[in-house]
Amino acid sequence: MAIKLASNAYGKNAVNLSKIIRHKDYHEFRQISVNVSLEGDFETVHTLGDNSQVLPTDTQKNTVYALAKEHFVSSIEEFGICLASHFFSNNPQLSKCKIEITEHLWNRMLADGRPHPNAYISGGAEKHITSITQSRREIEITSGIKDLLILKTTDSGFEKYIKDKYTTLKETTDRIFATNCEISWLYQTAPADFTSAFHDIRATLLNVFGDHKSLSVQHTLYAMAEKVLEKFSIVKEISLEMPNKHHIPFNLQQFDMENNNEIFIATDEPYGYITGTVIRD
Amino acid sequence: MAIKLASNAYGKNAVNLSKIIRHKDYHEFRQISVNVSLEGDFETVHTLGDNSQVLPTDTQKNTVYALAKEHFVSSIEEFGICLASHFFSNNPQLSKCKIEITEHLWNRMLADGRPHPNAYISGGAEKHITSITQSRREIEITSGIKDLLILKTTDSGFEKYIKDKYTTLKETTDRIFATNCEISWLYQTAPADFTSAFHDIRATLLNVFGDHKSLSVQHTLYAMAEKVLEKFSIVKEISLEMPNKHHIPFNLQQFDMENNNEIFIATDEPYGYITGTVIRD
Amino acid sequence: MAIKLASNAYGKNAVNLSKIIRHKDYHEFRQISVNVSLEGDFETVHTLGDNSQVLPTDTQKNTVYALAKEHFVSSIEEFGICLASHFFSNNPQLSKCKIEITEHLWNRMLADGRPHPNAYISGGAEKHITSITQSRREIEITSGIKDLLILKTTDSGFEKYIKDKYTTLKETTDRIFATNCEISWLYQTAPADFTSAFHDIRATLLNVFGDHKSLSVQHTLYAMAEKVLEKFSIVKEISLEMPNKHHIPFNLQQFDMENNNEIFIATDEPYGYITGTVIRD
Amino acid sequence: MAIKLASNAYGKNAVNLSKIIRHKDYHEFRQISVNVSLEGDFETVHTLGDNSQVLPTDTQKNTVYALAKEHFVSSIEEFGICLASHFFSNNPQLSKCKIEITEHLWNRMLADGRPHPNAYISGGAEKHITSITQSRREIEITSGIKDLLILKTTDSGFEKYIKDKYTTLKETTDRIFATNCEISWLYQTAPADFTSAFHDIRATLLNVFGDHKSLSVQHTLYAMAEKVLEKFSIVKEISLEMPNKHHIPFNLQQFDMENNNEIFIATDEPYGYITGTVIRD
Repeated sequence: MAIKLASNAYGKNAVNLSKIIRHKDYHEFRQISVNVSLEGDFETVHTLGDNSQVLPTDTQKNTVYALAKEHFVSSIEEFGICLASHFFSNNPQLSKCKIEITEHLWNRMLADGRPHPNAYISGGAEKHITSITQSRREIEITSGIKDLLILKTTDSGFEKYIKDKYTTLKETTDRIFATNCEISWLYQTAPADFTSAFHDIRATLLNVFGDHKSLSVQHTLYAMAEKVLEKFSIVKEISLEMPNKHHIPFNLQQFDMENNNEIFIATDEPYGYITGTVIRD
Repeated sequence: MAIKLASNAYGKNAVNLSKIIRHKDYHEFRQISVNVSLEGDFETVHTLGDNSQVLPTDTQKNTVYALAKEHFVSSIEEFGICLASHFFSNNPQLSKCKIEITEHLWNRMLADGRPHPNAYISGGAEKHITSITQSRREIEITSGIKDLLILKTTDSGFEKYIKDKYTTLKETTDRIFATNCEISWLYQTAPADFTSAFHDIRATLLNVFGDHKSLSVQHTLYAMAEKVLEKFSIVKEISLEMPNKHHIPFNLQQFDMENNNEIFIATDEPYGYITGTVIRD
Repeated sequence: MAIKLASNAYGKNAVNLSKIIRHKDYHEFRQISVNVSLEGDFETVHTLGDNSQVLPTDTQKNTVYALAKEHFVSSIEEFGICLASHFFSNNPQLSKCKIEITEHLWNRMLADGRPHPNAYISGGAEKHITSITQSRREIEITSGIKDLLILKTTDSGFEKYIKDKYTTLKETTDRIFATNCEISWLYQTAPADFTSAFHDIRATLLNVFGDHKSLSVQHTLYAMAEKVLEKFSIVKEISLEMPNKHHIPFNLQQFDMENNNEIFIATDEPYGYITGTVIRD
Repeated sequence: MAIKLASNAYGKNAVNLSKIIRHKDYHEFRQISVNVSLEGDFETVHTLGDNSQVLPTDTQKNTVYALAKEHFVSSIEEFGICLASHFFSNNPQLSKCKIEITEHLWNRMLADGRPHPNAYISGGAEKHITSITQSRREIEITSGIKDLLILKTTDSGFEKYIKDKYTTLKETTDRIFATNCEISWLYQTAPADFTSAFHDIRATLLNVFGDHKSLSVQHTLYAMAEKVLEKFSIVKEISLEMPNKHHIPFNLQQFDMENNNEIFIATDEPYGYITGTVIRD
């Protein structure tokens, strides 16, 4: 019985790069983290230690910085496509090249209500993400949002679920719904402007989240996904990961006080973890 | 030669609490984390295991949730004062009670440009902090900001420093200045409105950071502190911790390219760490 | 054009549980974190908010604690199988139930060279993991190791790789090889004793890592995998993720000193990330 | 009313360095993280941006790597003393130089029961720490342990504490006592061998923790400290921070099961936080 390599990938992760793009009246400051991952016929790298087809991860890193000068000028999606194309066309040994980019957001400071030309404040934990997967056959482009922490204080219930001997949860028509979600969508056609497409889709997702009469996390997850597919014909499918950030009513009754959905214990663990992918049929 | 207890403190940390404050037209959502720390004559707790003067940390936690219902209605400073006062006046064995509160910020979502009545998005990593230290003699109130991540792309240099045999740093008149700072100030008189005082002081700090012609981190740190003391007579002293978030020019010359302060490596470690406290004489 | 749910899963993550198993002469202390994930026909949960087939994640959590009393008595693999079986047999709406368990390791303290009967010290960041995937057709059992941080100071080189215009890495026959790896293997037949199988496989992996003359990370990854498949016929396939923890020689020459592979900069990011799965043909 | 600088410090943190010390039969692998902090008369750095007395943090970093070649040959305490002495004697503008070193522990792998000559496995999260504070007047040397995660399953109770209207905690004579502690001690005379002193003191701390009949965290904290002061005349004072890692009995009664101190919920937050310093009178 033989033993063999079934799958493999290698690359450089967390290539942390920032860029100042100097416009006439202000500086645009961008900060990204890039992952490069290469796949191909690397059997003898593994079995014989033959590195003749290996592009070192150190070189991958250098390439990201070097190409950023000319090619990281607008969206992370376009820079990712450029990187994937570069690695793929220069390395015939590859069957797949995957570029993932995470953008840390910075906002221009406001001074007397106007954006400062060269001072910035962090946009917080929320990040804009993209992944570009280039293979011989096709290129897949996804965009998305990571660490989007959102919450609603009402219009969320959870009732009529299965009860068994280990059930202690009380049914409720009014609870806090909070989630630190990651959402990504696959384009079936590239938008004319990746950045504005991103912002339009993000706004749609937030609007549905805010206004939905939620009967469960799944119910809202689906409504958010459905609306994006309805409104944006360029989107082929969309996936959401919605880990709960639980806010549990504190038992004030033990001190003869009422808790009218006012005071909550915020907990990180354990947490409900709900995921779904919605597609066009 | 005897052995004895020199100092001690105990309490509950990370009491994570959220509250919905229901206004006529919208819900106000607040999320805080509270630390309680008690000091006093606890010699025999340590030496004999005599717990008769010990208010359990579990009870401290319950107290925070219970008092939040009536008393966490506006600023974290006022809620902290309430908590410190409660523990101090009910526990004569204490010499000191310190309450630290960290507020996680939430912003109301915008729907068609208007704030949503009950949906929120995280305000990011930046947090509003306070510490209240109640002793027999006095009460000390500080307010501050934690994880304030700010950056400027120009108006920052570093020159004319000591050179020795281990110096490799190049002098520069134009570098990125980024810091994830923590700033706190001690009030000499309590402001009429803690929340608006906080916002005014924060705005002042950001304005100085953005506009200062910085000759070093220390230089900007001092300018920020000085301006706060000049503008706000209620502030007695102010302390800043300014760890650098370095953005180091990537060497493009090795690829025969120029780097005109465009492309940087963003690094977390090692990092410069600059701190200072500025007072009135 | 219709829109529909393509895939979905939900469950409770990070159910953190500890147990004291009281033996005659000593206490066995165990600490685990359990993830439960359920899949099935949950279309109407998403589209209609119909929760009639939903076992709440809160109930899943309670079930883990309740079943631990009788059934978490030996290996995490056996407890995982018990949990998967419980959820699967009581919930006909499921097509799949996945249980993941991470065990935090504790070692009994040594007192005068002998294990203390009831005092423990953490076994560090390394964790023993398992995942059990129960479907109508089969049950898949994997065991593995997470956060296994290992290093060798020699017998590792990297040469004869592709050079292009962005190459700056120097070839080397002697470098530090360090990785914080995650390794998991799929059983084709369940071992008689999961715990001793785990320890035997772990020892084999470490022995190969220590003694291998490494020509690349991939080369050592494969050697480790191959040896496990050769020695353990119960293992069907094995996957390794080997992120580099780089230790980069510090340039002492700039101070007229030699660095004979002595002094290194330890960095976290960016990092090489190498993965592979090895199977029987 | 004037405004002035009250205190200030600056330096480089997280200088991450590893070293291979090549012995005849094996390699010794060491990994440390160094913080340098300098204080002195830096008034005009702050007020005028005059850098003429500033040793850049970048140079501090270089110095740590350069001096490590000759001087990091045994204990972190001795290397710290060397660094403090170097910065202090070469920079007359300083009033204080503080060096903090954290050592990440590595154990040689065992192969057939014998230590491997050049392969290592992480010693876990526990770290050996030191701080050296050099001023004109004196040098203070502390050693210690960080992230020491220890636990006992019995011989720990908590009773006869204050009850008030917010008390819900039940008295117990038998609970889990777990803490992730940081302990440091100040030497009044330097030991002949810092490393063996460290190991002897650590062993003493663990022995007391394991065997103590604990009536509270404070009670055990003091017993640990007292024993170190009794046994080691070179120790002047010792400080312990003992954050609780709570393991709370899960309520099995709600499912008509008994929980005889068997099944616990492991929680991270909120947590009791107990600190104390014990000295010679």
